[in-house]
Amino acid sequence: MKQKHLGRQTVAFAHPPSILSFANIGGKFESRGPLASYFDTLNNDSFFGEKTWEKAESAMQKSVLNCALEKAGLTAADLDYILAGDLLNQCIGSSFGLRDFKVPFYGLYGACSTMGESLSLAALLIDGGFADKVAAMTSSHFCTAERQYRMPVPYGNQRTPTAQWTATAAGCTILEADGSGPYVTHVTCGKIVDKGITDANNMGAAMAPAAYDTLSAFFQDTGTKPADYDLVITGDLGELGHAIVRDFFSKDGVELPNFQDCGLLLYNREDQDMHAGASGCGCSASVLNGYLLTELKKGRWKKILFAPTGALLSPTSSFQGESIPGICHAVCLSAET
Amino acid sequence: MKQKHLGRQTVAFAHPPSILSFANIGGKFESRGPLASYFDTLNNDSFFGEKTWEKAESAMQKSVLNCALEKAGLTAADLDYILAGDLLNQCIGSSFGLRDFKVPFYGLYGACSTMGESLSLAALLIDGGFADKVAAMTSSHFCTAERQYRMPVPYGNQRTPTAQWTATAAGCTILEADGSGPYVTHVTCGKIVDKGITDANNMGAAMAPAAYDTLSAFFQDTGTKPADYDLVITGDLGELGHAIVRDFFSKDGVELPNFQDCGLLLYNREDQDMHAGASGCGCSASVLNGYLLTELKKGRWKKILFAPTGALLSPTSSFQGESIPGICHAVCLSAET
Repeated sequence: MKQKHLGRQTVAFAHPPSILSFANIGGKFESRGPLASYFDTLNNDSFFGEKTWEKAESAMQKSVLNCALEKAGLTAADLDYILAGDLLNQCIGSSFGLRDFKVPFYGLYGACSTMGESLSLAALLIDGGFADKVAAMTSSHFCTAERQYRMPVPYGNQRTPTAQWTATAAGCTILEADGSGPYVTHVTCGKIVDKGITDANNMGAAMAPAAYDTLSAFFQDTGTKPADYDLVITGDLGELGHAIVRDFFSKDGVELPNFQDCGLLLYNREDQDMHAGASGCGCSASVLNGYLLTELKKGRWKKILFAPTGALLSPTSSFQGESIPGICHAVCLSAET
Repeated sequence: MKQKHLGRQTVAFAHPPSILSFANIGGKFESRGPLASYFDTLNNDSFFGEKTWEKAESAMQKSVLNCALEKAGLTAADLDYILAGDLLNQCIGSSFGLRDFKVPFYGLYGACSTMGESLSLAALLIDGGFADKVAAMTSSHFCTAERQYRMPVPYGNQRTPTAQWTATAAGCTILEADGSGPYVTHVTCGKIVDKGITDANNMGAAMAPAAYDTLSAFFQDTGTKPADYDLVITGDLGELGHAIVRDFFSKDGVELPNFQDCGLLLYNREDQDMHAGASGCGCSASVLNGYLLTELKKGRWKKILFAPTGALLSPTSSFQGESIPGICHAVCLSAET
């Protein structure tokens, strides 16, 4: 084991990869939320000009990668790898959205943790010396997720108070080996954690133990505490999951002074009635590749710990009475190396 | 770009990771095939003691990882990462099969190329200095694949002549940083290739262009030719896809003297009537982690190019009239560094 591996789960990069560009895209509800001004593209058409919502999700991935490439002054031929995945069965949002780019591609499945997973592996490939420029990305779409996981949208299914609203959004980060930052300084790879939660309408509670597990590992491996970061932000735990993580740390006597969740930031919770908050791969991806990285670059924060979680269930596993395994991948972003 | 990256897609490892152990498991049809003696475990019960086929697939992953750990004299706590994925919606074969091991986990989706993708990323993580021991694995199950992609098995759906038979099998390779081999010397990350094939019962034809694309990149990047390898073996192209790849190379004036396909080896094609051959993530995974690595260790071959392909479709994409994108990840295995 090389020295750059701290503890069991965390890698501290010898030569931290730098964020070259980032882009996001959102739909109608995102355009009415408090972070609307941080989006590169907002489209009121849930089909994004396509004939089906699945093709719309692919169109979002294509658009957001093109936008990130343009902002970086690159073409697809400059990328060494694309790392992407999504929530759709067989990750078709990614494979159809990215097939025209002709870039070496590793497909991922980390559910709503995918932005954390893709960013982690992108940084590992660069610091390992295998790449100079890598795109990390993911997406979700309210309508594709509803019909796949729950009910077709036109059915008008009733939502429980703990339900979250899948973001119609995508985000892409392009990392490079040498740059002026912000930097990815550490990544912590999560373990699958399953505490026996079976309510598929309460994903926050199902994923909270994974967030606690990975964040605890990160703090232990790096010898730091939450107060050392200007922001510790999970992906889409929502109101309930967020409170559960705070409770877990509180029992350990650890304060979380700057603790947030992308799912609590994306929508205006008073007017938009999204119940427990936003969710979906596109939630943390669009918040990271808009609000978080923009404000990090502006100097509002110096150091952010970004830790999106994923619920590794399927409708089939729920029908078969299974509980919901969760996972969380953490990425430390810093203005300086 | 560091020098170890050859061309655009291929990495030549500075310090090739070594194969510490490998294991496979199969079902009833695999036990009647010509490679039966190369399986660690064969089970005539398609449920593998579980109540559903999905749980059976998870049980196969659990079993094959335990077997590989045992053969290596390791416990799960010795692993730095597990890299895995499968064909099931949201990759539940992997997440439920591996949740009890408490090992840092990156979930992958590469369809039937997953054994190539997981092995590639495992080798990259090790050579990058981020890990000492990594497990790479995948699975498939005939009955879970049939009901998800085609029809429930009891329906007795008619199969077309170009149809392939999804293997009920899983395979796991444990790589380590320093060992006595065989070694992973090179990996080539594939691009998504879509030539417009829309027949979901003819996966071999859909995936053949991706195999040709990645194999061509590998030979070009390494300055070698097919005849320099004792075996060039694809994952599950089957009879038709295999012939198409040979045709493509033939048009380039390139001979493929030692060209095989795991899908043509797993079953006895005269007696077992599997039509165009075997398929599924478990096909190439079980052939690699049985026949191929056993015979490589015995000295039958010195150098193998293992190049499994994946079809990145879903039933939804096919219903929406989409063509079938393919991908192929190549891994060069050698008795010596």
